[in-house]
Amino acid sequence: MKRIKLTVAYDGTNYCGFQRQKNGITIEEVLNKGISKATNEEIKIIGASRTDSGVHALGNVVVFDTNSTIPANKMVFAINRRLPADIVITDSQEVDLNWHPRYQYNIEKVYEYHIFNAKVENPMKRLYSTFVSFALDLEQMRKGAAYLIGEHDFASFCNIKSEVENTIREIYAIEIKRVNEEIIITVRGNGFLYNMVRIIAGVLIRVGRGFYQPEKVKELLEKRVRTRESITAPAEGLVLKSIHYKEEDQK
Amino acid sequence: MKRIKLTVAYDGTNYCGFQRQKNGITIEEVLNKGISKATNEEIKIIGASRTDSGVHALGNVVVFDTNSTIPANKMVFAINRRLPADIVITDSQEVDLNWHPRYQYNIEKVYEYHIFNAKVENPMKRLYSTFVSFALDLEQMRKGAAYLIGEHDFASFCNIKSEVENTIREIYAIEIKRVNEEIIITVRGNGFLYNMVRIIAGVLIRVGRGFYQPEKVKELLEKRVRTRESITAPAEGLVLKSIHYKEEDQK
Repeated sequence: MKRIKLTVAYDGTNYCGFQRQKNGITIEEVLNKGISKATNEEIKIIGASRTDSGVHALGNVVVFDTNSTIPANKMVFAINRRLPADIVITDSQEVDLNWHPRYQYNIEKVYEYHIFNAKVENPMKRLYSTFVSFALDLEQMRKGAAYLIGEHDFASFCNIKSEVENTIREIYAIEIKRVNEEIIITVRGNGFLYNMVRIIAGVLIRVGRGFYQPEKVKELLEKRVRTRESITAPAEGLVLKSIHYKEEDQK
Repeated sequence: MKRIKLTVAYDGTNYCGFQRQKNGITIEEVLNKGISKATNEEIKIIGASRTDSGVHALGNVVVFDTNSTIPANKMVFAINRRLPADIVITDSQEVDLNWHPRYQYNIEKVYEYHIFNAKVENPMKRLYSTFVSFALDLEQMRKGAAYLIGEHDFASFCNIKSEVENTIREIYAIEIKRVNEEIIITVRGNGFLYNMVRIIAGVLIRVGRGFYQPEKVKELLEKRVRTRESITAPAEGLVLKSIHYKEEDQK
């Protein structure tokens, strides 16, 4: 028996999230099926991040246990052949049997939120960004974002449907940059609550438009309870870029 | 009666081209329907470029005649409300009643062909680029492309199904650049034959991989007959960026 760690990229457009919803096809389901076919076993993966319906990933991480004789580094090819075009394994390697993708010290997760900021929509960007036609003041957004850096109780930046008890998380950095007509908000942290990055993006967009002053971010954070003012930005703009395990206890 | 010129952007993924195929929904059909609803008339557009199945556009041009009282510059909003999310009107203006989007002097059409060139596929790029995992030599590609500049008989760069009699076209410029993991081939010319840009891209990819020497492009061009060596690159990598009418005889 060995444990295989996979890095997974997917276009979330056609999925009801990684595992959240029951009334539609999920990434987890399709991965279980593809890996089971490749290994000729009944596989149940464990995922690092349960991304929402419509959210994308370039570097989600999953593990599974197998007795298959396929070498760990060849799993990429064996599994990709059994996956649809919108889910791609980008890396595979063996890890310790007790290595768990969620319970590790010093995890860094990197999310990007993409805003298509132009006068007119671009239909080729619609699946991977949210469209904002109004001018956004990036300096104001950066001022607002600064309040979120560090360890905080992010209860007011969490979907109320969440069942998590501990709402304390640490954000290491938030970078906001413009690349042509796109504004990209990059958020790095040790973990994120349900909808947290989308709420951060939603609130920062309001700051950028001038609806909120940057100080509003601090005010919302200190409330420690989710209100209507904590707007959730649409799912399609969000992509889980990568997950870094700093204390690599992999083989 | 007035003639309205629209600039149209679309994601071609879910369409059987602008008008070519009969066994599926086309861009033209959806535009006719949307504009007819907006104007309360039976509208038949005339398009500048009949893009292929799966090909995208950011700046295709169409015209239609109408008695509607909607001001020309408000047509954008009126029509967009009646279109699906993957087709967007980006500009509308009135032109002379005899202005035709195909029969104009000094037209410049700009196409881009996108290649996702990396070791592993990116599912978020799959609808808007073709994936090439091998290293491509851009210098060799540029040398090959140079043979295509100017006025030539492009018969060997044309789908044999084409019914066009005159296969002489002029290419003004071809630029090939790398932007991160993408290689973008930009082709400017006064007009293009059926599949012409995709065949140019297909042949240049072969040059980039070292399968063809740059001189092969000259050899193919001089044959003036399409052979199996003129590979057609996949539709999804192609986007009609813009059409410039240099002698603007619009109102």
